[in-house]
Parts: sequence; structure tokens; C-alpha cells
Amino acid sequence: MTESMLLLVLNLAGVFFFGLNGSLIALRQTSLDLIGVVVVGMVTALGGGTIRDVLINSLPPATFADWRYLAVAAAGALIAFLVGHHLERFISVIDVADAIGLSLFCVAGADKAMAFGLGLSQSVILGAITAVGGGMIRDVIIRQVPTVLTKGLYAVPAIVGSILTVASIRLGIYGTSAIVIAALSCFIIRILGMYFNLNAPKPPFRDKIQ
Amino acid sequence: MTESMLLLVLNLAGVFFFGLNGSLIALRQTSLDLIGVVVVGMVTALGGGTIRDVLINSLPPATFADWRYLAVAAAGALIAFLVGHHLERFISVIDVADAIGLSLFCVAGADKAMAFGLGLSQSVILGAITAVGGGMIRDVIIRQVPTVLTKGLYAVPAIVGSILTVASIRLGIYGTSAIVIAALSCFIIRILGMYFNLNAPKPPFRDKIQ
Amino acid sequence: MTESMLLLVLNLAGVFFFGLNGSLIALRQTSLDLIGVVVVGMVTALGGGTIRDVLINSLPPATFADWRYLAVAAAGALIAFLVGHHLERFISVIDVADAIGLSLFCVAGADKAMAFGLGLSQSVILGAITAVGGGMIRDVIIRQVPTVLTKGLYAVPAIVGSILTVASIRLGIYGTSAIVIAALSCFIIRILGMYFNLNAPKPPFRDKIQ
Repeated sequence: MTESMLLLVLNLAGVFFFGLNGSLIALRQTSLDLIGVVVVGMVTALGGGTIRDVLINSLPPATFADWRYLAVAAAGALIAFLVGHHLERFISVIDVADAIGLSLFCVAGADKAMAFGLGLSQSVILGAITAVGGGMIRDVIIRQVPTVLTKGLYAVPAIVGSILTVASIRLGIYGTSAIVIAALSCFIIRILGMYFNLNAPKPPFRDKIQ
Repeated sequence: MTESMLLLVLNLAGVFFFGLNGSLIALRQTSLDLIGVVVVGMVTALGGGTIRDVLINSLPPATFADWRYLAVAAAGALIAFLVGHHLERFISVIDVADAIGLSLFCVAGADKAMAFGLGLSQSVILGAITAVGGGMIRDVIIRQVPTVLTKGLYAVPAIVGSILTVASIRLGIYGTSAIVIAALSCFIIRILGMYFNLNAPKPPFRDKIQ
Repeated sequence: MTESMLLLVLNLAGVFFFGLNGSLIALRQTSLDLIGVVVVGMVTALGGGTIRDVLINSLPPATFADWRYLAVAAAGALIAFLVGHHLERFISVIDVADAIGLSLFCVAGADKAMAFGLGLSQSVILGAITAVGGGMIRDVIIRQVPTVLTKGLYAVPAIVGSILTVASIRLGIYGTSAIVIAALSCFIIRILGMYFNLNAPKPPFRDKIQ
């Protein structure tokens, strides 16, 4: 499998898992119907990559230039709609799908930003934006405080995955192994963070504020 | 009237009705002053077309390349501000203005996406995004759950209007009649949906979830 | 100091003060940790300029083409995180930092829009969008009604600063003095508006609505 093929697979798999995640979260909002659930799923799946492509001037975004993105996003969203009530450990599936999407998108985002000639730190940030962007739009439209602002270690693993991707490209050792290591590092940190309930440091002396 | 002229009229009329709609909805939020009401009206009017133009790489967006868009959006918003309290059947005017904007924008959006060389399914989605985008931004900034996620048959008529537009372009029968039929179909489905309170299907077995 | 140099300084200073402002506001949300506070600060700092650059097709946005923007935004956000609890008159610092950012960004935004060939009224609107855009995204993600919709005289000073900038460019008298006058006018109107609690007019007969 060539690298560009591998990257397409990363992207599409990320789209699928974020579509699943977005719709499962939307299912918990009792006011939403089929269309609402699918829209939230597709926005979650396609939001991060679309923001990245707008910012690096890769327009129209892959989302709208390649029909497979729309199809895979819709598939993830519809599967969630249909089988959501069969999923025994619902919360776990939501979180694992989200962690997989996060891991795949930070690598794919950082890789594409480097390919479009952005600088090292910019590519790291764009990888992270790709990974957290869809979930942030999801949270805004269903009116939750965005996960990235509150849940311990959500941006951190995305930044780690992006740094590993950018570093391996820069060092000339980028390839299938580097991609797997970067994505796995993000995934493991995210899962450990959830399991041990790790958090980024809180502001010092918050009680004195106000 | 040439077709490009007709399309400009569709776009500007859509901008006007969405400007009216956005400001009328904003008027019901007691905390907003003149500027707030006009800003919400203009964002509603111009949001959908701006998102479309960014995604198809038609930059700067028509909104900022042609002064008539800003003028017409401001006119719709100001009229709502000034005469809003005279409108006897306030809710109906809000909903009808919204349905008109939706119908005109799905056609104009799908047409422009096709003209920029996007694929068939992408053009349908972009038509729907153009139609529902402004209202979604409106709902996010005034902190309502977006209409498209909750109100029965809001995305569906926009998708039907977009499909009819894309199909008639593809079949070579696009023209004034096709435009009118596509916009009217969207409008009628939307109005019937409101009148009979139709809804998209709800998720199966929702009570089992969570 | 050349004008383009001066403009870079305006932009970076605006980014710094908005970064400070965004993080100080985020600090008041007890649920946010270090990452959340820094993310809100950076989004506030970089949001307005990024929207402007997307709309005028200056892609990738300066934010991602020039590392200094990311560095300065992060510096403002981190300083707020670290010393926020030492700031005696916390609210005043938030508001003054916001007013400084607003004043610098309306000038920088209107200037850049004119440089990219947009019309006069479009450049005024883009200056205002640059100035209020970051704060609007900040308010949406931390779930406040956007300041620009509710707080008296927030958009008005930004529009005044933009008009003065565009007018002086059009009249051929643009330069350091014009920039200082435009930014100061915005700043003074904003501060006076806060001090005297001035407001834009309220909708007429609001009590009759609904």
C-alpha cells in the first residue's frame, strides 16, 4: 500500500469513526430526529478536515471533491442511528470511536499541512485543529461546552501525534511505521488519560479570582 | 430575463427574506439592541452563501465582492427592526420568510456548485448547506438548538430543491421553469411539513438509550 | 517605521491583547483547565484575522503563514493563565485588553481588505468582522451570548475605526497619523461607551412583541 493510499485510508477511517461518534452523542439528545442525528454525525466527521482544507487553501475541500468522504460519513452516522440502541456499553463506544478519529486525524492533518508547505509549528497546530475541529463544531451545535476545553488530555494527545508526524517528515523517516507510531501514541495517551482520569493542570489559585 | 440575472434575483431575494427572518427572531430576545438585531439578521442572510463560496473557492464571497448583497441584507434586517411590532401574525411571517429563503438558496447554491464543477452529490449537499447555513449560525449565536436539527422537515425540502436543480442541469433541461419548479417544491414541502407538523423518523427504541 | 511594519505591529499587538482577554475570560469558567484556557485565548486572538483572511482569499491565513502570530497569541494566553490571579482589577483588565484589541484589529482588518481590492463598504464590514470575530467565536465556545449582540457600543466603535481607515486610504492621507487617529477613535468610543453605559437604541415597542 503506497503512502498516499494509506493516508486516504486514515482519512476515511477517521471520518467513519467521527461520524459514528457524532451520531451516538446526538442520539442522547432526545429532541433530535433522524435528520438531526445524521447532520450532527456528518458535521463531526467532516468538520475538522474541512476547516484544515480551507486554512491551507486546498479548495474545494476533499470532503466536496471526493464523493467517498460524504458516503463514509453518512455510513458512520446511519449505522449509529440504526444500531445505537444495541450498543451495550454505549459510553465506551462513543469514547473509543472519538479516540480513534482523533488519532487518525492528527496524523492526516499534520501530513497534509506539511505537504502544502506550512511551517513546522503551524503544521502541528493544523494537525491538532483537524483532530479536534469536528468535535468542537458538534459540541457547539448541540450546546455542550466543547470537550477539548474541559476533558483532561484531549488536545494533548492530538498535539503529540501531530508532533511525531511532523518530526518524522522533517527527519526523513516518515512512512507506514512512523504513521502507525504517531497515531498509536495519540490513541494510547487519550485512552490512558480517560482511564486514569488525568487532567492538564488547573489554573493556580483559582479561588482568588473574582 | 437571462438565467444569470434570474439567479442574481433569487440570491438577493433569499438574502432579503433571511435578513427579515433573522432580525425578527432576534427581536424576540429581549437582551438585544439595534446593533444586535441587525447583526443577527445580516449573519442569517449572508451566512449560507458565504460558507458555500468559501467551500467552492469563489473568493472573496459574492457577499463581499458585490455591494448589493450587503445592502439588501441590511435592508431586510432594518425593516424587521422597524416594523416588527406591527406584524400581526409574527410567527407566521418568521416561518414564511424562512421558507422562502430556504427555497431560493437551495436552488442558487446547487446551481453555483455545479457551475464550479463539483460532482452531483456534492452539489446537492452544497445547495442544502447554502440553504440551512445562515439559520444554523443564527441559532448558534443566539443560543438555540439549530432548527435544522429539531424541526421536522427542514433539511428534507432543501435537499429536494437541490436534487431537482442538479438533476435538471444534468439532464440539460435547466432554465426558468426548472428553477421555479425546484424552488416551489422546496417551499411547498416545507410549508406542508409545518402545517401538518410532519417529522423525520425518530431513532428506534430511544427509551432504551441511556 | 514603515507602514507595513507598523501594520504588523498593530496586528501582533491586537493578537496579544485578545489572547490575554480570551484567557482571562476563560479563567472565570471554573470547568476549564490549562489547555482549555489557552485554547480559548488563542481562538480569541486568532479568530478574527483568520476569518478575514479566508474571506479575502489570503490563504493560508497570516496566522498559519507567519509563526509570530501563533507565538504572540500563545504568550498572551499563557501570561493570563499564570498571572490572572494577581490582577487586582480583573474585570477592568479584561475590558481594556478587549478594547485595545478591537481598536487595533478594525484598522488592520480594513487596511488589509482595501489592499486586497475590496470595495469601500465591504472593507468597512471586513474591518468590523476582524475586530469582533475572535470575541464572537470565544463567546460561542464558552456559551455566552456574544458581546457584540448585547453590550452597548461594541460594534459601533469598530465600524467607526474601520470607516476612518477606509476614508483616509481613499482620500490618500493614510499613514501613521491616520492609523493612530482611527484606532484611538475606536478605543475612546468603546471606553466612553462602557464608562457611561451607553447603548444602541432598543427596538421600538418591544413589549408589544409576542
